Amino acid sequence: MRNQLLPLAIIALAAATPAQPQASAAIAAGKSQPSPLAPGEIVAAAPKADWTAIAASDLLVMDLAPDAKGKPRRVVIQLMPAPFSQGWIGNIRKLAAAKFWDGTAVNRVQDNYVVQWGDPDAEDKVKAKKLPEGLAVMPESDYVERLTPIKTKTPTARTKPATERFRKDPYGNNLFGLGWPLGAADYSLWPVHCYGMVGVGRDLSPNTGTGAELYVVIGHAPRHLDRNIALVGRVIEGIEYLSSLPRGHAALGFYDPAQGDERTAIQSIRLGNEVKDLPAYEYLSTESASFAKYADARANRRDAFFIRPAGGADVCNIPVPVRRTQ
Amino acid sequence: MRNQLLPLAIIALAAATPAQPQASAAIAAGKSQPSPLAPGEIVAAAPKADWTAIAASDLLVMDLAPDAKGKPRRVVIQLMPAPFSQGWIGNIRKLAAAKFWDGTAVNRVQDNYVVQWGDPDAEDKVKAKKLPEGLAVMPESDYVERLTPIKTKTPTARTKPATERFRKDPYGNNLFGLGWPLGAADYSLWPVHCYGMVGVGRDLSPNTGTGAELYVVIGHAPRHLDRNIALVGRVIEGIEYLSSLPRGHAALGFYDPAQGDERTAIQSIRLGNEVKDLPAYEYLSTESASFAKYADARANRRDAFFIRPAGGADVCNIPVPVRRTQ
Repeated sequence: MRNQLLPLAIIALAAATPAQPQASAAIAAGKSQPSPLAPGEIVAAAPKADWTAIAASDLLVMDLAPDAKGKPRRVVIQLMPAPFSQGWIGNIRKLAAAKFWDGTAVNRVQDNYVVQWGDPDAEDKVKAKKLPEGLAVMPESDYVERLTPIKTKTPTARTKPATERFRKDPYGNNLFGLGWPLGAADYSLWPVHCYGMVGVGRDLSPNTGTGAELYVVIGHAPRHLDRNIALVGRVIEGIEYLSSLPRGHAALGFYDPAQGDERTAIQSIRLGNEVKDLPAYEYLSTESASFAKYADARANRRDAFFIRPAGGADVCNIPVPVRRTQ
Repeated sequence: MRNQLLPLAIIALAAATPAQPQASAAIAAGKSQPSPLAPGEIVAAAPKADWTAIAASDLLVMDLAPDAKGKPRRVVIQLMPAPFSQGWIGNIRKLAAAKFWDGTAVNRVQDNYVVQWGDPDAEDKVKAKKLPEGLAVMPESDYVERLTPIKTKTPTARTKPATERFRKDPYGNNLFGLGWPLGAADYSLWPVHCYGMVGVGRDLSPNTGTGAELYVVIGHAPRHLDRNIALVGRVIEGIEYLSSLPRGHAALGFYDPAQGDERTAIQSIRLGNEVKDLPAYEYLSTESASFAKYADARANRRDAFFIRPAGGADVCNIPVPVRRTQ
C-alpha cells in the first residue's frame, strides 16, 4: 500500500481561544445562560450519519480467563484500517485464525506504560509455541505511511503545509483521519501512541515483531514509541480488565512467578466475525461536524465544572468516541 | 504567598533535534559505537549532589487495607512545596493530624482518569464525618501562583519571555522548577496534571474543595483540569495499589455497592514524620545537569531499542525521578 492517493479528510485540532474566566464563572453559577454542552453531550447528540460502522472482521476479541468471582472478561480491539500497519495486521489475522493465542497469557503489566500478552515461553527454544506458516516479515519503513501529494493549483486546506493546519505539540504535527489520531509530516502519516492503542512487541532493531506479542498502552501516552513500533489498533471495550491487572515485579513489569506474580490466562483471541452474538460498534467519524465540535469542546471545556478553558488539547486528550451501534 | 520573589531555577524542555535514523540504526546494530545512555541510566549515574532530600513532614502516607492475600498496601505522596497550593496543603496537614481519613475509603476509580478517596458519606448530611475545625476556604485565584518579575538590565534567560525559553504544547508553555512540572505564562506558574499527580476534589465553582477528598491521576494527563483544580502533590511510591483497583460501575467511575463494587478501606493517612521506620526519599533536582541530560534523553531516545528519536517530549512524558535515599 505504498504511494497511494489516500482519500483522507482531515480536521485540525481545535484552535486555541483565550480563556474566559469571567464569562464561564457566570455560566457555572447558572445565572445568565445554560452551560455549553460537555464533550460527552455533543457526542450523544451527534446524528446517526456522523457515525461510521466498524466491520466485525476488523475486530479482535480477547477473552481472558474469568475473574476471581467467575465473571467473564472480554476485551474488544479495533484493528487499524489501510494503509496503516497492514503487514502486521495480516499476520494478526493469521495468528487469530490459527488460534495461536489460546492458552497464552498476559505476561507483563508495567504501571503507567503497557500491558503485554503472548506466549510466555516465546524466548524458550524448546517450549515456545510454533507460529503459523506464512507470517510476513515487515520492514521498519512501514512504521510510517508515505502518501502521494495531491496536486492542485489553488492552495486548499489539503495542500497547505501541515505546519499551518494542524496543532503542534512537542512531537510535531498531529491530525485525525479515518477515525484515528495520527502524526504527520511531509506527506507522511503514522498512528500515535495514545492510551488504549495496541502495538506489536519486538526485539532490538532490525526486528519489527510478527504480531504474536501485542501490548496496549495503559498510561500517559508514550509518544517516544511513535514510528519505532508498529501500532495495529486500539481497545474499544473492556480495557479495564487489562489496566487493572496487578503490576509485574520483574524488570519492565514482566510477571515473575518466583515473586508471586500470577499470569492471567487468555482463553481465546478471535476475529470479530468468528464470534457469536458480538455487538456491532461504530466510531464518531473524525471528518464529521460533530467530531469537530467535540474536539473543540475537549480543548475548551466550558461546561459547568470548569472555570478556565485550556484553549487547546493534545491529540491523545481527544479520544475518538466509539460505542455499541445504536 | 502572593507576589513573592521566587528563587526558581528553571530549565527548558529539551530542544528538538532532527531524527537520525541512519546513525541510530548503526547504534542499534552495535557495530560502530556503544549505545548512548538510556534515561534510567543517566538517572542512576547522577551524582549525589544532584539529588534533593524530601522532608518526612512533606510526605503523606496512606495505608490501604491489606490486599486479598494479606499483603500491606502503602501509598506515599509528596506534598508540593511553597508557593503552590499551600492553603489546601495546610488543610491536608490538619486533616491528617485529626486522623480524618482513618476508616474512609477509595470511592471512585475511573479508567484512564482518576482514583479518588475520602468520606463515602460526605454528601449525606446525617452520616458525613465531621471535618476538623479551622480549615481554610481557598479562593480560585490560588490555582495559579503569580510571581513578581525579576528586573535586570540585561536580558538573561530569567527575564526572556517564557514563550522563547520553554517548549510549547497545545496547553501553552511548560517548565520544570523546584522538582515539579509546571505551566507558565506572564510570570504566572501552576502545577500540571501529569500521571500520579494528586489533586483536591471539589464541587461546582465557586467551591474549591477543602482537601478532604483527594484524587490521583491514573491515565493520560488530563491537562484540561490545570488551573481548574488545586494540585497538592504526587504519588512517589505505591501508585500501583491505586491504579490497579477495579474500576467503579456508577457514573464517573464512582463505586456502586448495588452493582457489586467493593470500596477499598483506608486504614490511616498520616504525615511522614508521624510514621515509624519510613524510608527517606529524594528527587532528582530539576535544576541539575543530570536532569537536563535526562530530559534530553527522554526527548531523544537513542538507546538500543530506538530507531528514530522523537525530537521532543511533553512535560508529562518526562517524569521527575524520585527514589528512596541512597
